[in-house]
Amino acid sequence: MPRYKLTIEYAGDRFSGWQRQQGFASVQGTIEEAIKALFYEDVLVEGAGRTDAGVHALGQVAHVDLARPLSENRVCDALNSQVRHLGVAVLRAEIVPPTFHARFSAIERVYEYHIFNRRAPLALKAHYAWHVIHPLDIEKMQTAAHCLLGQHDFTSFRAIQCQASSPIRMLNAFEFTQETLETGTYIKARIASRSFLHNQVRIMMGTLKLVGQGRLYIKDIPFILEACDRRKSGPTAPPQGLYLKKVVYEKSS
Amino acid sequence: MPRYKLTIEYAGDRFSGWQRQQGFASVQGTIEEAIKALFYEDVLVEGAGRTDAGVHALGQVAHVDLARPLSENRVCDALNSQVRHLGVAVLRAEIVPPTFHARFSAIERVYEYHIFNRRAPLALKAHYAWHVIHPLDIEKMQTAAHCLLGQHDFTSFRAIQCQASSPIRMLNAFEFTQETLETGTYIKARIASRSFLHNQVRIMMGTLKLVGQGRLYIKDIPFILEACDRRKSGPTAPPQGLYLKKVVYEKSS
Repeated sequence: MPRYKLTIEYAGDRFSGWQRQQGFASVQGTIEEAIKALFYEDVLVEGAGRTDAGVHALGQVAHVDLARPLSENRVCDALNSQVRHLGVAVLRAEIVPPTFHARFSAIERVYEYHIFNRRAPLALKAHYAWHVIHPLDIEKMQTAAHCLLGQHDFTSFRAIQCQASSPIRMLNAFEFTQETLETGTYIKARIASRSFLHNQVRIMMGTLKLVGQGRLYIKDIPFILEACDRRKSGPTAPPQGLYLKKVVYEKSS
Repeated sequence: MPRYKLTIEYAGDRFSGWQRQQGFASVQGTIEEAIKALFYEDVLVEGAGRTDAGVHALGQVAHVDLARPLSENRVCDALNSQVRHLGVAVLRAEIVPPTFHARFSAIERVYEYHIFNRRAPLALKAHYAWHVIHPLDIEKMQTAAHCLLGQHDFTSFRAIQCQASSPIRMLNAFEFTQETLETGTYIKARIASRSFLHNQVRIMMGTLKLVGQGRLYIKDIPFILEACDRRKSGPTAPPQGLYLKKVVYEKSS
């Protein structure tokens, strides 16, 4: 019973999130149903990260055990034939050892957060970036972000309903880049950690946005972190700017 | 009766094209109806280019005369309040002399064409790029594209139903760039001319794609051009890869 590692891209605006939910379109449910339709197997597709409704993935990873041994390309093409018109694409299917676990074997998760900073509303990127009207000072945001690097108690940056047993996380990277377009400024942040608390990236981004527009100072960030109080940080940034970019494993490409 | 120049972004997949058509959603019709709802005026919004169904715009330009003199920002914000949820954004409204004509005053139109070159289907870019599975040799495509620069009879690269009186056009630029992503190769072409024939960019791209995959040679391009026969060139590339990037005017930014 071979185990397959699936690398998956999806458009988050077409789903109520990764996780299967009765009565809602989920990415997990979509892939499980595709496998049932193709191979007549009831399976559990386990993902590395449970992205929320509206959050996109460029490289979500999941694993699944199939009773029939099929080639990697066969599994990939067969799945795509079922899901390609639903906003999901399987980028790769790889046979992995039975000890591989998409969620527990992951050593790093990398997210991107996109902001389109301009006055006019977004026509093309409406579901693919956070539209921020106030001009943002990206250098201040970058300096503030660096206050969050390293190991901290991120209680101030987790959703109230977060169920992780520990609020301690180690943030490995938080880097901003910006591109000046004729239609505005497009900002991308790249954020890496072994794992994240619920809504951690979005609350960090919502807080750094306040620094960028001058409503918080860089020096406020360490105090917010030390307060361990969700009420001290900024609002949760909207889901459409968030992309699960990749999941890293030992000896993984 | 001031004339306003409007710079407009839109998601082409939500429209049957720029031009007003009874019973179909058009960008022109959407803006004309917004003006009617806002200012109770029946107007003609004249665009610089009549993009086809599925073709996007990052900087379409149109002009319109309004009976009431309103500030530029007022016009821009009022229009956006009506069209922002329909896949259209007015980036700028500027008062221009009555001699300004969006279509006839334009001295250059710049298009971009996007190709996502990879095996897996597209989840996030399905409506925003041409999905090409065969690996493309971008250097060959670039060399072939340069054979099209300058003034030529582009009969081989116009739609049969094209109504332009002359097939002679002067191509100013045709430049390719590519970005290697973890999920595939993203190719952009930038194409500039005072004006284009119907489907000219898409037929040129469909032909160059055959060069990129080795089904045509670079040396075939001058012969196709000289043949003045639509049957000699390649298929019309799909609309979702095409973006009207900008329209240039004398003394325009």
